Amino acid sequence: MMELKEKTVRKNYIYRGKILNLRCDDALLPDGNPCQREIVEHSGGAAVLCIVEEKVALVKQYRYAYGEEIYEIPAGKLEKGEDPVKAAIRELSEETGLLAEKMNHLFTLYPSPGYTDEKIYIYKAEGIRQGKEHLDEGEFLNVELIPLSQAYGMIDRGEIRDAKTVAALFYFRNRIQ
Amino acid sequence: MMELKEKTVRKNYIYRGKILNLRCDDALLPDGNPCQREIVEHSGGAAVLCIVEEKVALVKQYRYAYGEEIYEIPAGKLEKGEDPVKAAIRELSEETGLLAEKMNHLFTLYPSPGYTDEKIYIYKAEGIRQGKEHLDEGEFLNVELIPLSQAYGMIDRGEIRDAKTVAALFYFRNRIQ
Repeated sequence: MMELKEKTVRKNYIYRGKILNLRCDDALLPDGNPCQREIVEHSGGAAVLCIVEEKVALVKQYRYAYGEEIYEIPAGKLEKGEDPVKAAIRELSEETGLLAEKMNHLFTLYPSPGYTDEKIYIYKAEGIRQGKEHLDEGEFLNVELIPLSQAYGMIDRGEIRDAKTVAALFYFRNRIQ
Repeated sequence: MMELKEKTVRKNYIYRGKILNLRCDDALLPDGNPCQREIVEHSGGAAVLCIVEEKVALVKQYRYAYGEEIYEIPAGKLEKGEDPVKAAIRELSEETGLLAEKMNHLFTLYPSPGYTDEKIYIYKAEGIRQGKEHLDEGEFLNVELIPLSQAYGMIDRGEIRDAKTVAALFYFRNRIQ
């Protein structure tokens, strides 16, 4: 098997921001040749598959990067070093008003390993009851409870494209068959 | 329904790089309040689910951002404005040496809509035959043909975490049931 490991020579920060940092590191390829690696540092996210009576809770949110409103499962950014379970409980509650007794870890996703270190921890909410929605300041979204069969159709028609949402819905569909 | 659209006031480029650009835009929230949006511009990617005799072609690659070797379906970055079908055929051939007669579009993923405009176009390779691997300069990876049942187990155990790979494998598992 080919040796694959790359070595960091020097980390170079270009930008330190609110939701991400950017580095352009000097590194060495496995054959010892120099290379540069553009890396987006992100503290990670927690996302929640929340299913109530065969309906999935989706938030519709304007995503500035795409200039579109898109559907996603409730999710949010981790505070630095935060336990993703705590973040999952908080984000579900803030965005949808739903409270979960327990979060079961389903899997963890690497959204775009070519340039970011972000990890998305995906949970299934258990023991769900109604609480009260309380969005962050500057957060605007609409919550919809969508029948699962309809949500699968939305993936097929390209109306749901968010990676964590597609993966979580497919995962659940496999589990129950 | 709540009004969700945000408006761009001014695009501010912070970095223009090889695989990504970074902007920090001045924008307006739906309620008219100012905000800033950190956006990673990326030209998009094409990825290929390639299945030969109940085995899936996976590449094992060192991903600098994570400091790990991870499994992914063959994939690569689009040249600016490139047809993703062309990129899918090229990347499959370069990385695995496999040639596809046809690429069927399965779905398109938004990997991390909170900060990037990257779109990943996912195809299934059809009419596969053996060619010759010819990696890009500076590209180091190992190709493995892994039985599908084993690949699903690797997702369950957290050994496959790449979002496009998880989504493509789950998609295929749903389709054939």
